[in-house]
Amino acid sequence: MIKKRIFTPGPTPIHPEASKVMAGPALHHRKSEFKEIFRQTVANLKAIYKTTNDLLLFTSSGTGAMESATVNLLSPGAKVLVGAAGKFGERWEGLCKQYGMRTTVIRKNYGESIEASEIAEHMDKDPEIEAVFVQGCESSTGAAMDIEAIGDTVARFPNTVSVIDAITTLGAASLHTDEWKLDVVIGGSQKAFMIPPGLAFISISQKAWEKSKRATTPRFYFDWKREWENQSKWQSAFTPAVNLVQALHQATSSILESGIDDLVANAALLARLTREAASAWGLSLFARRPANALTAIAIPPPLNAEKIVSDLQSTFGAAIAGGQGEMKGKIIRIAHLGYYDSIDLLGLLGAMEVTLSKQKHPLRLGSGVAAALQALVDRLNDQP
Amino acid sequence: MIKKRIFTPGPTPIHPEASKVMAGPALHHRKSEFKEIFRQTVANLKAIYKTTNDLLLFTSSGTGAMESATVNLLSPGAKVLVGAAGKFGERWEGLCKQYGMRTTVIRKNYGESIEASEIAEHMDKDPEIEAVFVQGCESSTGAAMDIEAIGDTVARFPNTVSVIDAITTLGAASLHTDEWKLDVVIGGSQKAFMIPPGLAFISISQKAWEKSKRATTPRFYFDWKREWENQSKWQSAFTPAVNLVQALHQATSSILESGIDDLVANAALLARLTREAASAWGLSLFARRPANALTAIAIPPPLNAEKIVSDLQSTFGAAIAGGQGEMKGKIIRIAHLGYYDSIDLLGLLGAMEVTLSKQKHPLRLGSGVAAALQALVDRLNDQP
Repeated sequence: MIKKRIFTPGPTPIHPEASKVMAGPALHHRKSEFKEIFRQTVANLKAIYKTTNDLLLFTSSGTGAMESATVNLLSPGAKVLVGAAGKFGERWEGLCKQYGMRTTVIRKNYGESIEASEIAEHMDKDPEIEAVFVQGCESSTGAAMDIEAIGDTVARFPNTVSVIDAITTLGAASLHTDEWKLDVVIGGSQKAFMIPPGLAFISISQKAWEKSKRATTPRFYFDWKREWENQSKWQSAFTPAVNLVQALHQATSSILESGIDDLVANAALLARLTREAASAWGLSLFARRPANALTAIAIPPPLNAEKIVSDLQSTFGAAIAGGQGEMKGKIIRIAHLGYYDSIDLLGLLGAMEVTLSKQKHPLRLGSGVAAALQALVDRLNDQP
Repeated sequence: MIKKRIFTPGPTPIHPEASKVMAGPALHHRKSEFKEIFRQTVANLKAIYKTTNDLLLFTSSGTGAMESATVNLLSPGAKVLVGAAGKFGERWEGLCKQYGMRTTVIRKNYGESIEASEIAEHMDKDPEIEAVFVQGCESSTGAAMDIEAIGDTVARFPNTVSVIDAITTLGAASLHTDEWKLDVVIGGSQKAFMIPPGLAFISISQKAWEKSKRATTPRFYFDWKREWENQSKWQSAFTPAVNLVQALHQATSSILESGIDDLVANAALLARLTREAASAWGLSLFARRPANALTAIAIPPPLNAEKIVSDLQSTFGAAIAGGQGEMKGKIIRIAHLGYYDSIDLLGLLGAMEVTLSKQKHPLRLGSGVAAALQALVDRLNDQP
């Protein structure tokens, strides 16, 4: 007996209440019943974002919302600064270059984080930079960025906006859009939001709106202004993925019942347990400053990372992620963001031990789980 | 984050394909589409039972099918022999006495098994005993009975039928209805069949049919003859729980895809892992001859069994079973029958360790999981 389980940093497991409405009837997107669901969903998202900024939904992957930021904020030839220490930082670079921006890249080794001080250095040299593009968490390496400090840094420059890919940050790490002065913050449905891929979200500060008014890059599907004219009346310009919106309404309502901080604490706990296990196995984390959203574990030879991934799948039905691009074969990645609990993780860690031991990795069976259990006991003892 | 999980010996987790049809439209029970599903479902059940005997479905709990055996096989005053070493053996006793049978009880301590030799002894003394009622697995204690030997023993007597409550045996332990000459075998939907409660099954040998022709105990809803007149034409006498039948069709088809022996081997593996963990924790099994369907672990003072059950529920969302009746507070019971895999169990064993350690039980955190992992590795190594 093998059950299919997904431990990848998106898609993540679906909340059962969300599954129910996805399997139910589609509402019509111009009728009042759907508009009310849309209104409540946006209100829920804004509570999760901790923002009073306008927030738009797109029927697209997260990359669609990333593209919308590029084309709505900037004109061809605009100066931009991109932080790239992994595949998703490189996606910012690719987007900006594709649309003809003059793109400066802070390029770091994979596993490292982009620092606010590095951004400040570039900005001080060239205050004409119009936008700074970074990740809150680089999902390809499991590295967290200090977006509070980055927001503060960029806010010092009156003509520069911060654009944060928070796709694997929202719901997995602390994020205060308004307090941290983050101009544009992007999320995706298939991460901590516990629904399938297909929806992306973007919050837009007043400063970003002002900039978008002067941006001449052509856009149509991803045009913020047209969407806002519709979404301010709780409908979208084009037909949205209505059942996904209905599912997001359920999932975000469930998240807010216990509070977004609880969801973040849950991801932090599962990340901590996984780090303890990795350490007990004698394996290192790949990221210098590991995120809560996922744990990337370095897999040195003679261990075979791709075989760990495929064995977990074939023997246990558990899907974890390997490395992407040049990290293929060097790391494995285990997700913690969204609908996971400690029993999920303890089961996976047990399966990991069996898989590592099959590759003759010198570990004492149960040692990683024992370390995770100790961390869990400590955490439960900390609670009142 | 806490997910609701059920590790009780019925209800058990629902197969996802079964969930889908349960949430779908109900078919009408007199139309050909449903009759075809009914026909296939009965064929599947007979393959699982390993029988060519007639097999009836009732919309009832398993107890309903147990009652049907009593009232269809016997007349008031008939001599019967009941094996009772737990709550479900006592249910046979209660049923037989309620309908005025002259009931001899082989009463054993809880945790013990009813032996074929004990049945032979009673039968040899009184060959007029018309029916022998036993469990294949006594779910209240986790004890397995040797129903192959019991079937052989009873078959020696031309006027006696064996009646097996196999509700937690089918799909969890080897069972060969025809080869083992078992006259009446009872199953229930919420066990290894991976669907919710609401359906019960009963196979009826020619010898049992003959006996039923002479039985004068009044019956209506549970009348075998009326049901067979209908079910031989692939419908039931009274309105059946159609969506449950549709779900059972899906679930039994899935079971037979990999084979009933694989399902039994899965329960046996999970039982073995659990026994290894219990032993590592310094705890004893309650049953002398433990079944695959569930593991009952004795919980001596100062450990508090009821608190283990409630803590697993409140801290981890995991429902295991405590003891019933006089065993309340003395044991806990963990199910293995049906839709469980090793990741399910490894997660639960981790949660058990946290819970035991909270009660200051002297265990090394991770020791039970380690023992289970070693058994799992051994098993994987055994496979080609």
